[in-house]
Amino acid sequence: MSSFNYTIAIDAMGGENSPGKVIEGLSLFLKEDKEVFFNIFGKETSIVKEISQYKNILPQNYKIINCESQIEDKNSVRDAIKVGKDSSMWKAIESVKNKESHLIISSGNTGALLVISKLLIKMMDGIDKPAIAGLWPNFKGVSVVMDLGANIEFNEKNYVEFSKIGAELYRSIFDKKDPTVALLNVGSEEIKGHEELKNAFNALSKNKNNFNFSGYIEGNHIKDGDVDVIITDGFSGNIALKTAEGTVNFITTEIKKIFSNSFFGKVCYLFSFPLFKKVKQSLDPRKYNGGIFLGLNAPVIKSHGSADSLAFFYSIKLSVKILRGGLVKRIKSNFENE
Amino acid sequence: MSSFNYTIAIDAMGGENSPGKVIEGLSLFLKEDKEVFFNIFGKETSIVKEISQYKNILPQNYKIINCESQIEDKNSVRDAIKVGKDSSMWKAIESVKNKESHLIISSGNTGALLVISKLLIKMMDGIDKPAIAGLWPNFKGVSVVMDLGANIEFNEKNYVEFSKIGAELYRSIFDKKDPTVALLNVGSEEIKGHEELKNAFNALSKNKNNFNFSGYIEGNHIKDGDVDVIITDGFSGNIALKTAEGTVNFITTEIKKIFSNSFFGKVCYLFSFPLFKKVKQSLDPRKYNGGIFLGLNAPVIKSHGSADSLAFFYSIKLSVKILRGGLVKRIKSNFENE
Repeated sequence: MSSFNYTIAIDAMGGENSPGKVIEGLSLFLKEDKEVFFNIFGKETSIVKEISQYKNILPQNYKIINCESQIEDKNSVRDAIKVGKDSSMWKAIESVKNKESHLIISSGNTGALLVISKLLIKMMDGIDKPAIAGLWPNFKGVSVVMDLGANIEFNEKNYVEFSKIGAELYRSIFDKKDPTVALLNVGSEEIKGHEELKNAFNALSKNKNNFNFSGYIEGNHIKDGDVDVIITDGFSGNIALKTAEGTVNFITTEIKKIFSNSFFGKVCYLFSFPLFKKVKQSLDPRKYNGGIFLGLNAPVIKSHGSADSLAFFYSIKLSVKILRGGLVKRIKSNFENE
Repeated sequence: MSSFNYTIAIDAMGGENSPGKVIEGLSLFLKEDKEVFFNIFGKETSIVKEISQYKNILPQNYKIINCESQIEDKNSVRDAIKVGKDSSMWKAIESVKNKESHLIISSGNTGALLVISKLLIKMMDGIDKPAIAGLWPNFKGVSVVMDLGANIEFNEKNYVEFSKIGAELYRSIFDKKDPTVALLNVGSEEIKGHEELKNAFNALSKNKNNFNFSGYIEGNHIKDGDVDVIITDGFSGNIALKTAEGTVNFITTEIKKIFSNSFFGKVCYLFSFPLFKKVKQSLDPRKYNGGIFLGLNAPVIKSHGSADSLAFFYSIKLSVKILRGGLVKRIKSNFENE
């Protein structure tokens, strides 16, 4: 690796408008922080062309590894594994496996990224399945919610494992000693929920955890910010996330419609523009961009396929926080201490 | 029953600020529509006192049935069944059983309402379990989403049954001949989701339905309004609903905070007040108040416990729509035709 402490592998080819947005995101990051090295995987000619547009991307911060092919969003996971070995995604993951990078970021095909990562980087000892964690804004800051869709079927062990892993993720990003962890349920009473969830509740109540287990939480309280880490199965977690995204879009569109439907409304909007800009900034989903695959021997960051350069910049920031916070070491020591 | 075509049983004692809000909601309804009769169950002295405040609640529209006790929100379902036989909720449900009312509305204890309704009114032939349906605003109008929490465990038969029932509910409320029905899932591809859901997808694809089966829908597309009825298990449905509620609250609070944080913001708000009022009206959750318990031999409407008089008014409106739309007959003929 380079002389810097941290090296990140970037799959520059996945998602919309790549590699343009990826390189622009990298340039934004390097304006803030120059102490990270990047292995950039993808079509060299395109990447060189993009980099030439940004004076602040200097040779000491990156290396390009030319990859002729790329895994497309439309590829099935099976096809991706079969023919993807020369792709930018595969090579980027491989560089983590070969200890040439500490972490990989990709905005490509989620399923392929998950399966190839599991294949090459492997699960940590003692952990059954990978989970996808995400950041969720709330009144007091940000929560971690997981699993957001990696595991449709969930058992008691998964809830307990992911509670520990989620707490470590929160610690590594936000530097809080004793995060609170809760299980997402349809009520806060002990008797509610399905069997696996109730068993997990009992196990976590009895366990000596190195986090504060605060019981159940309902969907309408995620926003309160009283709980740092919210654990749920991948089916419910994905539905909660997508429904919240849809609701944000619904409300902001309704507001726009009402303000743009009349001359008076347009004047009001113009007058209030700086405030609406503030609202937009405070709700900007790009700030929370990046699904974090956990449980593998190295973190894998999935940037949203439709994310732009600013969103990609936030993914890089998150990745570096995770590395500096020592996430993998934290999780490992947690599971070794059992 | 009365000389009117429809008689509704009202449990006047459940939820916050009862019976005041219930009677005020009734008064609001009777301003619009006088062709419905109400059996009002609860403490007679309190109800008479409340009614005396509204000149438009006339004797031909109601009868009070005095009930000395009431089921509290804090009561367990078991206690409610054991000691609740003299309660306003029990008596109101009983009046439906005895064919003295066509439908019951209550803002009391959800669990007790569900279990006592099942006990007294009984399930329709051919239907296994009751489901809770709700109205969900979207860009084009309103969708029906169910189950919102009655059934934590869900099998293939439930999905298929509830698709039919949901379509009939939509028909009875919105008078649309061929509503579209979709299953809530974590992706739109056929291979996604758990086994029960995939089996239901296959069954609904092969069945000759009297609705348009449109496959899977993801949480972020509920708002689009392209699907009339969205079917999901009670666990995911409750989490989706609560998360959406929390998200609405989060966004509107953020907007208020930003506009009230400065003198300039307050001036902007004052200037734009009529528009913000319009936004508030368009998103007002009270308009969608009322969980509808389906699958029983009569509809049971659960008004939100914290709902106010306007919300209760919307519950009554919804109830009358359901009765006029002939929901129970529609569902019955559907299941008899099998």
